[in-house]
Amino acid sequence: MASSNSDMQAVRFHPPKYDIRVERVAIPSIEHPDDAIVKIKLAGLCGSDLHTYRGVEVADRVHICGHEFVGEVVALGDSFGKNVEGRPRLYESLRLGDKVVAPFTVNCGECSVCRLGFTCRCRGSLLFGSPALQGAQAQFIRVPLAGGTLFNLSDDGLTDAQKSIADSSLMLLGDILPTGMFAAAQALNHPKLQADLSGKPWPACLDKALQSQEGHMTTMSFAVIGLGPVGVCAVVALLDMLASRRIPYVVVAIDPNPLRRQKMEAILAALGPDGKGNGKVFVKSIEDAKDLVQKELEVGCSAVLEIVGNVSALKLAYDLVRPFGVISSVGVHSAAPLPLTGDDMYTKNVSMDFGRCPARAMIPMAYDLLVKRQDVFGSVGKEASLVDSIVGLDEAVESYKKFDKGESGKILFDPWKSQ
Amino acid sequence: MASSNSDMQAVRFHPPKYDIRVERVAIPSIEHPDDAIVKIKLAGLCGSDLHTYRGVEVADRVHICGHEFVGEVVALGDSFGKNVEGRPRLYESLRLGDKVVAPFTVNCGECSVCRLGFTCRCRGSLLFGSPALQGAQAQFIRVPLAGGTLFNLSDDGLTDAQKSIADSSLMLLGDILPTGMFAAAQALNHPKLQADLSGKPWPACLDKALQSQEGHMTTMSFAVIGLGPVGVCAVVALLDMLASRRIPYVVVAIDPNPLRRQKMEAILAALGPDGKGNGKVFVKSIEDAKDLVQKELEVGCSAVLEIVGNVSALKLAYDLVRPFGVISSVGVHSAAPLPLTGDDMYTKNVSMDFGRCPARAMIPMAYDLLVKRQDVFGSVGKEASLVDSIVGLDEAVESYKKFDKGESGKILFDPWKSQ
Repeated sequence: MASSNSDMQAVRFHPPKYDIRVERVAIPSIEHPDDAIVKIKLAGLCGSDLHTYRGVEVADRVHICGHEFVGEVVALGDSFGKNVEGRPRLYESLRLGDKVVAPFTVNCGECSVCRLGFTCRCRGSLLFGSPALQGAQAQFIRVPLAGGTLFNLSDDGLTDAQKSIADSSLMLLGDILPTGMFAAAQALNHPKLQADLSGKPWPACLDKALQSQEGHMTTMSFAVIGLGPVGVCAVVALLDMLASRRIPYVVVAIDPNPLRRQKMEAILAALGPDGKGNGKVFVKSIEDAKDLVQKELEVGCSAVLEIVGNVSALKLAYDLVRPFGVISSVGVHSAAPLPLTGDDMYTKNVSMDFGRCPARAMIPMAYDLLVKRQDVFGSVGKEASLVDSIVGLDEAVESYKKFDKGESGKILFDPWKSQ
Repeated sequence: MASSNSDMQAVRFHPPKYDIRVERVAIPSIEHPDDAIVKIKLAGLCGSDLHTYRGVEVADRVHICGHEFVGEVVALGDSFGKNVEGRPRLYESLRLGDKVVAPFTVNCGECSVCRLGFTCRCRGSLLFGSPALQGAQAQFIRVPLAGGTLFNLSDDGLTDAQKSIADSSLMLLGDILPTGMFAAAQALNHPKLQADLSGKPWPACLDKALQSQEGHMTTMSFAVIGLGPVGVCAVVALLDMLASRRIPYVVVAIDPNPLRRQKMEAILAALGPDGKGNGKVFVKSIEDAKDLVQKELEVGCSAVLEIVGNVSALKLAYDLVRPFGVISSVGVHSAAPLPLTGDDMYTKNVSMDFGRCPARAMIPMAYDLLVKRQDVFGSVGKEASLVDSIVGLDEAVESYKKFDKGESGKILFDPWKSQ
């Protein structure tokens, strides 16, 4: 492949589907004063890349794929290096050479939505690796609204433990670890679970003064539907949150794919006892999970984490959830109607929380878990690793095929590997 | 109408629809040791009685209507008068002659669901005034699981202010006031509203240590869809909760019926300034509400309270809610599919909380508001009264017709009026 100083290698999607090509394109440059150019160290291949790949999510333009990356700042727009009151701090503090990670969507950090912390629904939001914005499976990437979007991994405020984390781990901060944590946090913070968590009945459980008293603990039960990389992160995050609250629990982790169940089992085995706390975890196929919930759990699961994003996963979530239970759905859904009636919802008093993880807002919390759980997030290519392999961009076509067929777990691209 | 010592007057529904008859039936008696017999002082006619009346909710058996009542205990089963550890306190303390109110469904207070406070989904739950359990529009009623179900209005622990409340106000504790408060409480306690309420961005807002600090307050915005008696209670409860938290807010109260809007306006006028706090309330038709939200509110409502229980109300709720907003739906829904796709939910990060109010668990909180807001809840038949009229059972047929057509607000029955 011919190369020059002004072009770079990139993985591009060609419409309508299943057409991935490794091509040479121009290196991006600053287009707006808020832009940064980042030299990619590692980029991820994510389950939601497959929505476009399979044509489920229609992408009508050729574009560079990928929305997960860690890299190094090589150019900054004119907004940087200035202290402007009210603007995100990074416009003042970010420097050339800093290592950064970005959430999978761009956010300004300044609009009314960002100020509430709901960064993924920023009014100027764009998804990396979509027709609207070039992605990260390349050697360089342009990051718009970079002072709001990027997280500085070279920040002076970070601890030595945080700075010692390998790039292959830091990569997980862009999407899958925050998204898995979001699924778990969204469920555990729901008011309908506070009675279980505090031991005080509803609505007394919502009174903060009462929560400080010791209550009678019930055994909580959870299902996690979908054990791809995000689902695994959701299970690890959920166990961590439950362990820290010392709550007795049952978690049923569900996937029809035996390879994914095997990976989940290996990761559970690798977690030390402090990673599991005071509970039991079962890894099950769909049918076995239904049987288990019906036989072992009196009224169903306190909460169900739905990580898949389709109609059958949602229907299963409804079937497994208890009355006054919570469905936390972070899967990317299509335009299919919800498979439930108003009466279904009323009769079971179900709560459903849907949508995209505000990853930028979650990164600090996810970073803490990443450091704490290096037994799981810190290795590559082992049975109990979340990351299966790191390959060059030249292997992108084959990697997409394997990942699409469920024959591989998480794959990372090192865009400088075969150069 | 002939009468004897062993029969009573009752309002009965005859299938399939629109057939209400005032008839004489046997006075109920104790059938189980946990039963109580209550002599009805007042019974309510509720919006959800109309679901059966209209045949929307199929009731295949003749039954006494009504699920709201206040009355006096005239007989108790053998379970009462005993102190059995673990049983609800009322089995020991309830006495003949005590004044009581019941939630609209029976609950044991002892099963795993009740112990979490989710009393309306008790595993032994039955709805008063349904084919499964005779209702309250009569002179007497049998209350199963009475020690778990009833709330004692003669309890020594009540304050003088609580004991001074008129029966026509206490009636509201059975369903509509708890249900309206539930709609508001469910929205305000949702984690997605904690960033607005605490002034700290998500997810920091979920950290209790941070919540105690003063943050930057945003103006919250709410829509309430449906201004029948429950909707009015929801607005009054919401304003009370917002006033006590000193939060700037906008509430848009919505109903297509001009008579209902007029009642809402009169009630708002009757609320003193302390009842409204630091905000603005608009009472609007559906089209005017859409215009207002689009023009005045940057991204939509923080939360929408859906009190109607049909597909168009839900669709309107979705259209009005902001990204990362909450839909709190307490309307009784039919078997129509939810009018939304998975993509709708994902794209807006919407949360939906559905279902029946756990009224028994809410009664203490509702009682406090009832005492506090006697300016609204304490009058009958005035422009700003929630209760429009108190009539005898003889007027039931006409009352159902008027209420069905939206020509009357809340109607109560005094079953001894025309005797």
